[in-house]
Amino acid sequence: MMTLEELVSYAKRYGFVFAGSEIYGGLANAWDFGPLGALLTDNIKKAWFKKFIDESKYNVRLDTPIILNSKVWEASGHLQSFNDPKVDCKNCHNRERADKLVEKASKGTIDADGMKLEDIDKFIKENNVKCPVCGKSDWTQARTFSLMYKTNQGVVEDSSSTVYLRPETAQGIYIDFKNVQRAMRLKLPFGIGQAGKAFRNEITPGNFLFRVREFEQLELEFFLKPGDENYWFEYYKDFSFKFLTNLGIKEENLSLYDHPKEKLAFYSKGTTDIMFRYPWGFDELWGIASRTNYDLSKHMEFSGESLEYLDPETNEKYIPYVVEPSLGVGRLFLALILNSYENELLENGDTREILHLHPYLAPYKAVVLPLIKKVHSEKATEVFEMLSKEFNVSYDDTQAIGKRYRRSDAIGTPFAITIDDDTLANGTVTIRDRDTMKQDIVKVEDIKDYLRERVNF
Amino acid sequence: MMTLEELVSYAKRYGFVFAGSEIYGGLANAWDFGPLGALLTDNIKKAWFKKFIDESKYNVRLDTPIILNSKVWEASGHLQSFNDPKVDCKNCHNRERADKLVEKASKGTIDADGMKLEDIDKFIKENNVKCPVCGKSDWTQARTFSLMYKTNQGVVEDSSSTVYLRPETAQGIYIDFKNVQRAMRLKLPFGIGQAGKAFRNEITPGNFLFRVREFEQLELEFFLKPGDENYWFEYYKDFSFKFLTNLGIKEENLSLYDHPKEKLAFYSKGTTDIMFRYPWGFDELWGIASRTNYDLSKHMEFSGESLEYLDPETNEKYIPYVVEPSLGVGRLFLALILNSYENELLENGDTREILHLHPYLAPYKAVVLPLIKKVHSEKATEVFEMLSKEFNVSYDDTQAIGKRYRRSDAIGTPFAITIDDDTLANGTVTIRDRDTMKQDIVKVEDIKDYLRERVNF
Repeated sequence: MMTLEELVSYAKRYGFVFAGSEIYGGLANAWDFGPLGALLTDNIKKAWFKKFIDESKYNVRLDTPIILNSKVWEASGHLQSFNDPKVDCKNCHNRERADKLVEKASKGTIDADGMKLEDIDKFIKENNVKCPVCGKSDWTQARTFSLMYKTNQGVVEDSSSTVYLRPETAQGIYIDFKNVQRAMRLKLPFGIGQAGKAFRNEITPGNFLFRVREFEQLELEFFLKPGDENYWFEYYKDFSFKFLTNLGIKEENLSLYDHPKEKLAFYSKGTTDIMFRYPWGFDELWGIASRTNYDLSKHMEFSGESLEYLDPETNEKYIPYVVEPSLGVGRLFLALILNSYENELLENGDTREILHLHPYLAPYKAVVLPLIKKVHSEKATEVFEMLSKEFNVSYDDTQAIGKRYRRSDAIGTPFAITIDDDTLANGTVTIRDRDTMKQDIVKVEDIKDYLRERVNF
Repeated sequence: MMTLEELVSYAKRYGFVFAGSEIYGGLANAWDFGPLGALLTDNIKKAWFKKFIDESKYNVRLDTPIILNSKVWEASGHLQSFNDPKVDCKNCHNRERADKLVEKASKGTIDADGMKLEDIDKFIKENNVKCPVCGKSDWTQARTFSLMYKTNQGVVEDSSSTVYLRPETAQGIYIDFKNVQRAMRLKLPFGIGQAGKAFRNEITPGNFLFRVREFEQLELEFFLKPGDENYWFEYYKDFSFKFLTNLGIKEENLSLYDHPKEKLAFYSKGTTDIMFRYPWGFDELWGIASRTNYDLSKHMEFSGESLEYLDPETNEKYIPYVVEPSLGVGRLFLALILNSYENELLENGDTREILHLHPYLAPYKAVVLPLIKKVHSEKATEVFEMLSKEFNVSYDDTQAIGKRYRRSDAIGTPFAITIDDDTLANGTVTIRDRDTMKQDIVKVEDIKDYLRERVNF
């Protein structure tokens, strides 16, 4: 697997990801999705919506704003407890996440998640933990730091106008539970899912797209009758895992981590992370949580509105339970490239970069290549125009055909369609497969069906 | 055309749009897109990407963050001059946009856009302009108010950590011009487009989705050789107008407004708005601007990085000019529903709600209806599962077939597919057209082609 540095360089070279605000010296681990990255993220979202929502009779979409009424974050508990502990180096002003510092200093023997501030201070003192930047051991006391971005809405800067950027998309779904259920006349169980930006003012963002302050989430809240939560928890663990393997992620790159009972919030019936093998080791890709009726109950309590469901079969009234598979687009993006990239050694000793992306995810499904620019461009443009009505395709008339193949392999384009004299004479094209390099002869009017069959997910 | 009140009520009833944060009493003109609204906005974005980017050999996508390095907004001029004038009523503390107040008080005879603060104060005093809330005429002096949302990034709240939510997506494109051009090896002219949220702290948001503080933009920056700007300005005015009419917006609901020369910024070569006939009159839908090299020049100046282009044909170096068609998703959403909604009077005296959306935009392309739930559900589910692999379709087995038709007409579903005894016996379904109510008999294996042909845009 490529290293993180190789990945960053590859992603920039081919237009997948650029450093954010680069001409101004960047902005703390912010990234732009370039033309190919924007297509890949779009395809990731499409695949998720397709499988988690649109192919289901029971699940629907939603799209709520980034800025919600601040009472939402009181009710959800984010204002009180969405914090990380931090310490500052008094000598060089470097700031560290205190729990991570402790874990590192203990060489992984201590799990500092949820450790008390006093205990963190004590550990740092007793172990004389050094600043990784200047090497001194002169820290401030550990303090909590809110991960919520705060801003003002309306036109005066007073506390009544304080609003927050959402740290997750889920709460927008909970507070609309009743509106959605009524308007769509839904019966339990059913799910509501949305894609959207979330913001967390992380103390130490890093690892490329893995931990960024502004990121995109894909969250499904699946509402169900209390008692059925274990069935649906298992269902969505399995469904999410298969989603990944169906997209081509190798099982050897995945593992499951069940959060231990004693680490769970009091209301939780279980959380499992699907872990991916990143360059720094297995780490979280997808979290699936069985959250009971905690969130809906909190919003009932704080809003005074009933979020109960009247079961039409039993006439019982109850607050639905929730199972939540929650995924970050950037993490799946990272996993997909790491999983799919290969630098193949060819028989002649050359190497060939290939991105073995599932055709459904590939930024371009095909590239149209006029063999000789002067002779075949007109026909190639026709083919491009026909295909681009249905598929994302690119067009390349630049250099020698071999180099054009290399580039399209490197960016993951599964099919290279060459327009040559045979096209003009017989109306056939050559379609070359990215992975096998095998070539098929296909009639122009059959290309769409050829692609449809193979792009399908 | 329906009134704004009728529209809001319709949109809520069917799950297109809900009041944002409703259970907490809302949040100043914020709105949630419900299940159908989320599908419609998604289809609007798809249609835009398809026509403005993916079907073009020259244009590419991009996806940059909401939070950029703050120097971007210094360079673009937003920090200095993205303001509106405001006045407060000293009696009741109502706040008004001062220019709009003047325009209203003058009954539209004064265009107060860009009016000096002194002149606003003078007009208000001389004309004894009254507060629309309490009726008094006791105003503070007019002051400018920044529309930029400010927040802090990193973990200390000092000025060095001040960042802003982007008020437009365009600047993210400008600062990536060089990265994109290089990685994609693009030659002028070419365009870079993106969809994304933008934030403006409007003093008086209103008119449903028309003026909201958090909204989604679709912006294309088309870069070109200086001298070619008039050609491309006309091209994109025409292209954008046809995009709307091809999606079914009636020409009588559209008009063009050329900004007068004396109102243009010094660098501008022209701005034309495509106006739509909203319930309150013609107002802006789409702005097409010829912006010369102003933005790229400013970013060159502030970043010190060259954003020049080396013309491979002439070997000249120059800063490209830009033509920018810029559209808000919410405004097009509004225009589409207003344009498409009909309350048809039937021969028997009943009325029928229909949303005549282009099938490409319709939230569901088809609804699958088992005629009798007990008898036809199994086959209907099969058909649903087959179709949902390719199209957004819904499934409805609730009430009498007539009522189900009514509902699918009202939400704009172009095709209603009924599964009945003929389906079981001969493998055919009845497909009813939303607009004409005519019915076709189609074989199950031909439904996909039937839909493909008609959904195509």
